[in-house]
Amino acid sequence: MSVVAQTLKKFINDPADVVKDSLIGLGQAHGDLLRVDLENQLVLRKDAPVAGKVALVSGGGSGHEPLHGGFVGRGMLDAACPGEIFTSPVPDQMLAATKAVDGGAGVIHIVKNYTGDVMNFKLAAELAEDEGIKVESVLTNDDVAVEDSLYTAGRRGTGVTVLVEKIAGAKAEADSSLAEVAAIARKVNERGRSFGVALTSCATPAAGAPTFDIGPDEMEFGVGIHGEPGRRREKIRSAAEIVEEMADAILGDLKPAKGANVLAFVNGLGGTPAIELYVAYAELTKQLKRYGVTAARSLVGNYITSLEMAGISITLLELDDELTALWDAPVHTPALRWGT
Amino acid sequence: MSVVAQTLKKFINDPADVVKDSLIGLGQAHGDLLRVDLENQLVLRKDAPVAGKVALVSGGGSGHEPLHGGFVGRGMLDAACPGEIFTSPVPDQMLAATKAVDGGAGVIHIVKNYTGDVMNFKLAAELAEDEGIKVESVLTNDDVAVEDSLYTAGRRGTGVTVLVEKIAGAKAEADSSLAEVAAIARKVNERGRSFGVALTSCATPAAGAPTFDIGPDEMEFGVGIHGEPGRRREKIRSAAEIVEEMADAILGDLKPAKGANVLAFVNGLGGTPAIELYVAYAELTKQLKRYGVTAARSLVGNYITSLEMAGISITLLELDDELTALWDAPVHTPALRWGT
Repeated sequence: MSVVAQTLKKFINDPADVVKDSLIGLGQAHGDLLRVDLENQLVLRKDAPVAGKVALVSGGGSGHEPLHGGFVGRGMLDAACPGEIFTSPVPDQMLAATKAVDGGAGVIHIVKNYTGDVMNFKLAAELAEDEGIKVESVLTNDDVAVEDSLYTAGRRGTGVTVLVEKIAGAKAEADSSLAEVAAIARKVNERGRSFGVALTSCATPAAGAPTFDIGPDEMEFGVGIHGEPGRRREKIRSAAEIVEEMADAILGDLKPAKGANVLAFVNGLGGTPAIELYVAYAELTKQLKRYGVTAARSLVGNYITSLEMAGISITLLELDDELTALWDAPVHTPALRWGT
Repeated sequence: MSVVAQTLKKFINDPADVVKDSLIGLGQAHGDLLRVDLENQLVLRKDAPVAGKVALVSGGGSGHEPLHGGFVGRGMLDAACPGEIFTSPVPDQMLAATKAVDGGAGVIHIVKNYTGDVMNFKLAAELAEDEGIKVESVLTNDDVAVEDSLYTAGRRGTGVTVLVEKIAGAKAEADSSLAEVAAIARKVNERGRSFGVALTSCATPAAGAPTFDIGPDEMEFGVGIHGEPGRRREKIRSAAEIVEEMADAILGDLKPAKGANVLAFVNGLGGTPAIELYVAYAELTKQLKRYGVTAARSLVGNYITSLEMAGISITLLELDDELTALWDAPVHTPALRWGT
């Protein structure tokens, strides 16, 4: 068994089948919401295409679950294209998704800023437009940790992607036009900033070994969701000290209005228990107070992960009445659900 | 910093403050649903006591989040009493919770079968009855892995506890009597069985070292939620083989009716990524088919954890129309929400 030989143990069968096996399970567990097209490796909203509704498609490498397949359903994504672990899906897959969900009102591609994803989604959009489907692409690039990373020119797209998918998904449910949904999606990205910290590495099933080496007393400050390097490797500090510097990085860049309301999103990277996420939330509250900012909405949990990596990311989104109302609108997906 | 010295790295401040720090964050993130009483170390439904409603109180050692504090809210628990990590809360704490939430219709204590919890909840119930509050205690003991464990006489209480809290919580919302709510809670426990497997150990913040040693190619088959030994230590196998034996253990004991509907609950123990939980769900579906049983409802995620332990547990609950309707009833808590 190849499983036995792995340095980091995983609950899987053949490492080559992890994505497929997991998609089968996703489809079985949530057959009321979605269907899985194994041939094209897609997760599709069960009732897609929804006639007259702008459709939302996202995708990227697997290993970040629930992103994106766990966000397919009413009020969020119409389709997700999962690539192999940490590997962009291919243009054909994105094209198949786009065609499967277009209800005649056009399709939004939500693309995290990684070179492979950007290139492949661009090609897929061109192919779809050749077939008469209107496509608007929205890039997320919210990670303030570093510019120009291992797989990215500019800033990486991370936690804000979850919020873009939710809020643009709600806008699309409300009979909005393609341009209106794209505008809201871009607005969320523009008003959102993220920062991540890792205490341990992840390990891809294919490699079977940690993506990077990290000492027993070290952390990677500013890590990417594939284990890309951040700002520096350093000795682990207290949650209070770490969150203070994360908040400074995020809020120093976001520069929210005085007295602003934010959505405070504390995200687990996969291997960090919930008890620690709430410790981080308590520290974040102190920092928001220091900046005179109010957490009008919160989200705490594992929503954009890096396999079994221990660590957290924080995303802050500056809200206004429109974004708040769209955030509160009903959603029914495997990983995010309320109002229904 | 004591943080630095830990073998397993944690995102915390002083290890002695983890439970308190995390409760502060829970209260801040979910102030619309609950309030935290730090003096008595309680999580209380925000509008407690609800006049005329049977109230549900649970509790136990911390480290299993979201259980129990993450299940406080409408349609589930009225109060949770978190102890220190893996340590029973004390009777005074349970008594304070019971008094805080009693709306005149009596209080259910939901108690996982661990010796400390059982003893302390028994004393708290006696103290509450001395003060004129009617209390019914419901024990969960669903873990079929072993009889008589490190902290337990009989079977351990594990995953079914989540389902008891949800279903009895719905029954209590429906103007039911203390006896009726207790009867439903006991029925869920009687019709539910669980089994857990660990690939890695957890580490308590106080100890700062793994609770048990386990080789890089080993798993603990039948592990408890505090890292208690299971049936055996053995070489890790494929997900298919592991789930087959888990399903045999559960269904061989449960002996569901031919053609039964079950709620299939695949739970992450804290350090296992979602992609692996859905691999397990796909394997579980094969096993249910083999037994002629249908997963009419599903739950997949981290709901009863063991800090950062990598591993999963499976819980199967044999449904009937009444239990299905109560499962589907609205719930609004930090960790489980639908219909509202």
